[in-house]
Amino acid sequence: MKMFLSDNNSGVHPRILNAICECNKEHEYPYGDDSYTKKAIVKLKDAFGPNADIYFVGTGTAANVISLSNFLRPFEGVICADTAHINVDECSAFERFSSCKLLYVPNRNGKITTQDIESFFSSIGDEHQTQPKVVSISQLTELGTLYTLEEIREIADFAHKHDLLLHVDGARLANAAVALNVSFKEMIVDTGVDFLSFGGTKNGMMMGEAIISMNSDISKHLKYMRKQGMHLISKMRYISAQFIPYLEDDLWMKNAKQANKMAALLVSEVKKFPQIHLMNQGEGNMIFAQIPQPWIQPLKDMYDFYLMEESDNIVRWVTSFDTTEDEIYTFVDEIKKLANK
Amino acid sequence: MKMFLSDNNSGVHPRILNAICECNKEHEYPYGDDSYTKKAIVKLKDAFGPNADIYFVGTGTAANVISLSNFLRPFEGVICADTAHINVDECSAFERFSSCKLLYVPNRNGKITTQDIESFFSSIGDEHQTQPKVVSISQLTELGTLYTLEEIREIADFAHKHDLLLHVDGARLANAAVALNVSFKEMIVDTGVDFLSFGGTKNGMMMGEAIISMNSDISKHLKYMRKQGMHLISKMRYISAQFIPYLEDDLWMKNAKQANKMAALLVSEVKKFPQIHLMNQGEGNMIFAQIPQPWIQPLKDMYDFYLMEESDNIVRWVTSFDTTEDEIYTFVDEIKKLANK
Amino acid sequence: MKMFLSDNNSGVHPRILNAICECNKEHEYPYGDDSYTKKAIVKLKDAFGPNADIYFVGTGTAANVISLSNFLRPFEGVICADTAHINVDECSAFERFSSCKLLYVPNRNGKITTQDIESFFSSIGDEHQTQPKVVSISQLTELGTLYTLEEIREIADFAHKHDLLLHVDGARLANAAVALNVSFKEMIVDTGVDFLSFGGTKNGMMMGEAIISMNSDISKHLKYMRKQGMHLISKMRYISAQFIPYLEDDLWMKNAKQANKMAALLVSEVKKFPQIHLMNQGEGNMIFAQIPQPWIQPLKDMYDFYLMEESDNIVRWVTSFDTTEDEIYTFVDEIKKLANK
Amino acid sequence: MKMFLSDNNSGVHPRILNAICECNKEHEYPYGDDSYTKKAIVKLKDAFGPNADIYFVGTGTAANVISLSNFLRPFEGVICADTAHINVDECSAFERFSSCKLLYVPNRNGKITTQDIESFFSSIGDEHQTQPKVVSISQLTELGTLYTLEEIREIADFAHKHDLLLHVDGARLANAAVALNVSFKEMIVDTGVDFLSFGGTKNGMMMGEAIISMNSDISKHLKYMRKQGMHLISKMRYISAQFIPYLEDDLWMKNAKQANKMAALLVSEVKKFPQIHLMNQGEGNMIFAQIPQPWIQPLKDMYDFYLMEESDNIVRWVTSFDTTEDEIYTFVDEIKKLANK
Repeated sequence: MKMFLSDNNSGVHPRILNAICECNKEHEYPYGDDSYTKKAIVKLKDAFGPNADIYFVGTGTAANVISLSNFLRPFEGVICADTAHINVDECSAFERFSSCKLLYVPNRNGKITTQDIESFFSSIGDEHQTQPKVVSISQLTELGTLYTLEEIREIADFAHKHDLLLHVDGARLANAAVALNVSFKEMIVDTGVDFLSFGGTKNGMMMGEAIISMNSDISKHLKYMRKQGMHLISKMRYISAQFIPYLEDDLWMKNAKQANKMAALLVSEVKKFPQIHLMNQGEGNMIFAQIPQPWIQPLKDMYDFYLMEESDNIVRWVTSFDTTEDEIYTFVDEIKKLANK
Repeated sequence: MKMFLSDNNSGVHPRILNAICECNKEHEYPYGDDSYTKKAIVKLKDAFGPNADIYFVGTGTAANVISLSNFLRPFEGVICADTAHINVDECSAFERFSSCKLLYVPNRNGKITTQDIESFFSSIGDEHQTQPKVVSISQLTELGTLYTLEEIREIADFAHKHDLLLHVDGARLANAAVALNVSFKEMIVDTGVDFLSFGGTKNGMMMGEAIISMNSDISKHLKYMRKQGMHLISKMRYISAQFIPYLEDDLWMKNAKQANKMAALLVSEVKKFPQIHLMNQGEGNMIFAQIPQPWIQPLKDMYDFYLMEESDNIVRWVTSFDTTEDEIYTFVDEIKKLANK
Repeated sequence: MKMFLSDNNSGVHPRILNAICECNKEHEYPYGDDSYTKKAIVKLKDAFGPNADIYFVGTGTAANVISLSNFLRPFEGVICADTAHINVDECSAFERFSSCKLLYVPNRNGKITTQDIESFFSSIGDEHQTQPKVVSISQLTELGTLYTLEEIREIADFAHKHDLLLHVDGARLANAAVALNVSFKEMIVDTGVDFLSFGGTKNGMMMGEAIISMNSDISKHLKYMRKQGMHLISKMRYISAQFIPYLEDDLWMKNAKQANKMAALLVSEVKKFPQIHLMNQGEGNMIFAQIPQPWIQPLKDMYDFYLMEESDNIVRWVTSFDTTEDEIYTFVDEIKKLANK
Repeated sequence: MKMFLSDNNSGVHPRILNAICECNKEHEYPYGDDSYTKKAIVKLKDAFGPNADIYFVGTGTAANVISLSNFLRPFEGVICADTAHINVDECSAFERFSSCKLLYVPNRNGKITTQDIESFFSSIGDEHQTQPKVVSISQLTELGTLYTLEEIREIADFAHKHDLLLHVDGARLANAAVALNVSFKEMIVDTGVDFLSFGGTKNGMMMGEAIISMNSDISKHLKYMRKQGMHLISKMRYISAQFIPYLEDDLWMKNAKQANKMAALLVSEVKKFPQIHLMNQGEGNMIFAQIPQPWIQPLKDMYDFYLMEESDNIVRWVTSFDTTEDEIYTFVDEIKKLANK
């Protein structure tokens, strides 16, 4: 059974699973005070710079919520797109854990701009209004689109100029880096991002997420926040060890390249069908498309996927590190059949 | 390197690790809608009865906090011992997530009684005071002691009579069941416990914790609470699959028996040293003892353990499923050497 | 000094102040167990029906936040307009106190419709998404507009049909009732509103707000919530006594009529100036208008008011129970002078 | 009807009521930007020093909860006596609003010592445990006892040495100052208290409480916190104006002196009855006593009071600014009658 539902339908990449099994040897100190966690932190510092503060957690929601809640005071808010995962896909975990407000704005193709941020500036200093403090963007966005490095840098500069911080929800950061053909350092550190939810689960890990802070001032209390967030995992090595092969030998890149390549292949194939209206160009590994209503069920029966908006027949197809060309062509064949009916 | 620090220093039992690797085959639906999770639920229902509601999470703190917060209103409180893990070892995660109060009382050898519960009854109906709603006990307790079935039943009956619910923090429930020579059903379901944090991590799992509710009324919203608690794990099968061998063929029992047996062996050996004052009798797998101050460092250098109270030289030794007789005797030999100095 | 800034610039109506002084006689039981509070409750039950549950609090924010938080579970949300006072003028007090999410939508002239409510229905039952539970509307709206009885009834019916509840922020309910020429009962009880923030402060009280629940199921724990909300006022009689003259002899109506009449007078006068673009018709006691930029400061110097959107020169003028015809004409004279410059 | 239930049974002192009526003249800017609030702040700065930051609120619970929550991070806790008002008489409002933990310890005659504070120091730096950050004491304590200036200074110095802050719940601060015959400045500022809940309601005000911070670092965000705490009162002058006569001409002192004097008179009289066992010596205006069970109801029928512990027949008698010698003697006469039965 394969699916285009999400990249978390996949299992674990064999090299990641191997790393997990390899660390099952001896007693180790718990809660991250073990040799595997220490090595994984070294690898992440290689990627994100020596000043990066790194905290492993078990889910992407935890990475987002704990990192955002870490330094916010309860009257401060987070500016984000209405489509942001924290806004619509995490059951208000952020509001529950932080007691803070999300200041969501209409997205512009999944993204936000400095203009959106500026619209909250009249609140600053007014005790009747939530004080904006963080801007959160997703890279890839939830609509499969991409911020360019210039766009990220512009938002970061604008945020910092107005005493705001920039967070990136990087559940699919590897796919974005591959799409832009840049390193994590170029995309995150050099643009001025303050802190990051660095996702591995959607790119071949079992459960591998890390909060990465480029600014130790804002992460100095993060160890307490992670414990309060219920994500100080006792046998942490089984989480952290996954990051070692992921960063050594660029497994993150190989996995993301395959996923993106398969998305691009699917895009290039479905473009041939005038009945299909593509909403994005598959820059990463997510494709949104409007397709004929009668095609939906037969295609879902083959490889399941999400019907995003029932009224508009908009579907989402997500490829993964283990998606194959064969699968893409099999799917396209089914489309052909439906088109010829 | 071995340790007596905690049973979470151990790695994963080979059969558990095998189950994890075995489920790494195909695409599966995420968030628990997979075949392994379904099977694990069947196994847990075999153990806890067909009405049990089961929610897998990644940490023991998550099991405690999410289950307790699930139905509490913000003006309701949880009566527990001052030594309770939720009270002193979870960095007030409960208070943070629930905004509720822990009504902690001085423990009686790690335990509480109906008398302690009754002391809060004068608050009932008074809008100036926190309303008691749940009693939470730990089995094993944090001091390594045990509630008998009669004690649990007495507390459950008393709680229910006064419209309170009973929660058990079962981080070491398997060790307790083995010590009492009873099944989970006898200890939990038949005594009237309402809901349980069922721990596997300390007994040979990688990360395996489950919230088990015997009362579907109180767990009907738990799926939302788990998501908000950031523990709806996308590739959930890797958590849930661990419970399959754990319950099939009674791996939980074999593991806990070994741990308890090694604790009992250590107790029987150290009893020979008049310099050592045992605080409990190693009924489970945790021993608290007062030892001569000069012995502490040499013994910690051999197998590390916690010095619980520095002023009193009270130490905690925890055995695990992978503790061996050799290790116990090696440790006892070192004690002998220290005693003969 | 007079102002058009807000109706809370006014002092206390003499009859209200008299009622406060009158209750300063003897010792009384605290926290609402006094004869004045009991009498005020009787008066409110006369107005809102015998099943109304009534809780006095000190501020409008408290009435909104405590009443909305009262029965919400943390994964449930409140649908409201983006302009709602709870959304933009209470410094995220709701999110802080409830840990819940506001699901705000673009307002339609200050109002929302059943279509806006329906847009959240795809979330129902999905553990990844906030569960809609309450619809909150403001009457008068924050843009000075009005819901008709038919509109309220339609929203109430739609909400109830989908297991949602309807809350009204009635900070200016008296002005709305006068504008629609209906009783509170007709506007609130007969339309199916579930609970109400009933404001008196903006209509001549010193500090007088009440949470009124038409549904005792949802208010059964409100006494604890009010105490937790820090609004169980010890000498409560000084709050509650204000409601006695307010409801006896229809002081609420007389006050609101005067305020509305003055707003209507101002509207009728400023309509004569083609330079002024009215955004609403002053149905209640709030007028929004776009005026020439150079007029703003001179007019503010006379009677201060809010400049709502600096870029568009949109101003808000609010009349009060103590606004006089003289003041309106003085203000209009100044406009004339500016127009003739 | 008079009572010994609490000092909040009393009404408002005529001079306070007069100040309220006097400020009912003109339009004023709302939310504290008015001339009365400004004057009251000047008066409080005269009493507490020019660096004091002052925020008026409506209830004592609000003063405690908002001031304590102001700068606490969610993993930080407040050390207090088990008898503290915040711990047992505010329905866990603190936990609800702050999501933080109260670290309560057994009281020593209503008080705590540096030893109690020190018992939490082993938690410092340990991510598994709540981090102590504030010490909160009550002056008068809830048992009617007093901290001496030396005791306050010792706690303040000890707290500061260990990077903790000291809060005083001063619901009855005036009674304490009179009992110790010191000024507020000597008791609070000179001893090193960091912030204070300054209560007026129990000493003749209608609703008058202020948060007073001696350290502007910790109060710099308090204006947002007060708004979130739902206590930014729109017509604030009616709260703040009460403080003007209270501080001018030492009305606080006159009122508290009368209350204390009446308590002392009652103590001196009841001492004559061997059947009455006094738990404190009425240093302030609260007396705790164990009395014969059959006396309770007849005495309550005369002047109502709290029966604190039913099993032990312990009662609490509170005098007020308007308690008279006649009332004391009438009560003592009833005791005589009961004693002679």
